Amino acid sequence: MVKKFNTLERVKRLDPIGGKGELESIALLSPEEFKGKGRMFAHNFLKPGSTIGLHTHKGDFEIYYILSGEGIFVDNDREVQVSKGDVLITYDGESHSLKNTGDKDIEFLACIIYS
Amino acid sequence: MVKKFNTLERVKRLDPIGGKGELESIALLSPEEFKGKGRMFAHNFLKPGSTIGLHTHKGDFEIYYILSGEGIFVDNDREVQVSKGDVLITYDGESHSLKNTGDKDIEFLACIIYS
Repeated sequence: MVKKFNTLERVKRLDPIGGKGELESIALLSPEEFKGKGRMFAHNFLKPGSTIGLHTHKGDFEIYYILSGEGIFVDNDREVQVSKGDVLITYDGESHSLKNTGDKDIEFLACIIYS
Repeated sequence: MVKKFNTLERVKRLDPIGGKGELESIALLSPEEFKGKGRMFAHNFLKPGSTIGLHTHKGDFEIYYILSGEGIFVDNDREVQVSKGDVLITYDGESHSLKNTGDKDIEFLACIIYS
């Protein structure tokens, strides 16, 4: 099955997950296409100065893969500077947030898989 | 959990899966880190002229997300030109291959999830 790029929708979310600012998101798979194994596989664009709010995963785990940009990732109780190529894993029961501290979008892949 | 880019290993594979040429692969998750839900999440670089051989998925499904480059994807019994932003899904029981027809690497994310 091939989904061509020009058929994918790019959606804006304000103050994502209780954060602030703006996140644009291209869903690469629909929940149905995930066949019950996960609920998100997306290419995200977190705008400069924007934050995805701190939240806890329950019943699933999430992987971020940073494609470009710079920010601060909250990994439970610690803060980590992150940039291109870093892999950020938040397991079931753990919490995370991401703040864009640079002057360009943070582009990242996000994948949520059920536990 | 944060895995910094400079700690990730980039591995070369010749004639990948019965194909020809060279694939470089950075594993973003180890099988253990996938918690039994999948077996690969990787950033791949398929060299110009190289091909990942045609193979059938059994017991899992795979998603490719093209980051850059151009090629021909075999999606079961049809050939599709693919490029940046395209999403290629091969479900359990289906077959695929990928050939780089351009003059630069095809960079793509590959994720294999158990059915």
